[in-house]
Amino acid sequence: MNSRDDIVTAALRHLNVRPTASTADIAEAAGISRATLHRHFASRDDLLREIGLRSLEHWAGVQESTGMLAATASGDAARIRTCAEEMLRQLVVSADDYAFALVDEYLYALPEIGARTEELFELEVAFWAAALQAGVVRPGLTPRWVAHASYGVLVACREALRHGDVARRDVPDLVLSTFLHGVSA
Amino acid sequence: MNSRDDIVTAALRHLNVRPTASTADIAEAAGISRATLHRHFASRDDLLREIGLRSLEHWAGVQESTGMLAATASGDAARIRTCAEEMLRQLVVSADDYAFALVDEYLYALPEIGARTEELFELEVAFWAAALQAGVVRPGLTPRWVAHASYGVLVACREALRHGDVARRDVPDLVLSTFLHGVSA
Repeated sequence: MNSRDDIVTAALRHLNVRPTASTADIAEAAGISRATLHRHFASRDDLLREIGLRSLEHWAGVQESTGMLAATASGDAARIRTCAEEMLRQLVVSADDYAFALVDEYLYALPEIGARTEELFELEVAFWAAALQAGVVRPGLTPRWVAHASYGVLVACREALRHGDVARRDVPDLVLSTFLHGVSA
Repeated sequence: MNSRDDIVTAALRHLNVRPTASTADIAEAAGISRATLHRHFASRDDLLREIGLRSLEHWAGVQESTGMLAATASGDAARIRTCAEEMLRQLVVSADDYAFALVDEYLYALPEIGARTEELFELEVAFWAAALQAGVVRPGLTPRWVAHASYGVLVACREALRHGDVARRDVPDLVLSTFLHGVSA
């Protein structure tokens, strides 16, 4: 528990449940002294920055492992549809692990986090533009709106999980069907 | 600008743009002294509590003006559908005014805000249960999931607006069609 990486993991786990936890609370939950925590992170912002960067690298990893850039470039409807579904399934799983990082305003106010978020967001906008072009997404929507809508459904997923309102097993299908087809009968 | 109510309005307007603003920043943006701000609100938490309560009363007002309780009790599909659409349209408009209150974790960590949120959320869960029962919402979804999903699409709307990614005029239809029918072609 004394490595920087272990501390970030423990901090994230605690912040997922208590988003407003202080560094003292986090140290206590992680079972380390405040001195140990401060040796690695001079301030709460430093710790948030590390959590934010890790969460963004996870997002970048999902974009990569699902071949999002290649699917975007291909313009192929079937490929784009498969990629969209796989991305959402993977992000749903991590919406719980990265619950805190998904929505914390203080974290996104940190300059380098905001900039990297924009970068990854723009890649996703390009992907949804290709999806629109290929007829995977219905006309009348815009790529930027679809990108925000996919974020919104992940926030819904995170809220439903943290309140214990959905079974973890059901979440990927709920998220995917709601995002793709809505809630209307 | 010296009344408590004016200060809350100005604070909310500033926090919508700078969610991490300190009380000093807020006083400056509102064009009042820190002393005046502190005369009304002893701490940032006190100010947040007032913003949270106002935003929740707005939510309660939307539930009331759209006749949500009566629609829930009626079990009538057409009435429930109309009420759902009207609620979303009204909440979309306020998702921008109450952008900060919609997602701030620090605000929801305040005990009385959390409790009142749960109360209003439960009324909405009962409404979506009636919607499911009446066949307005498709089978396979749960009332709690639908309630979270409606929150998610409001967060999407708020993000899209604050980034300037959608025209305000287009937002109600985008939100409604995405929530009801999804993004798929």
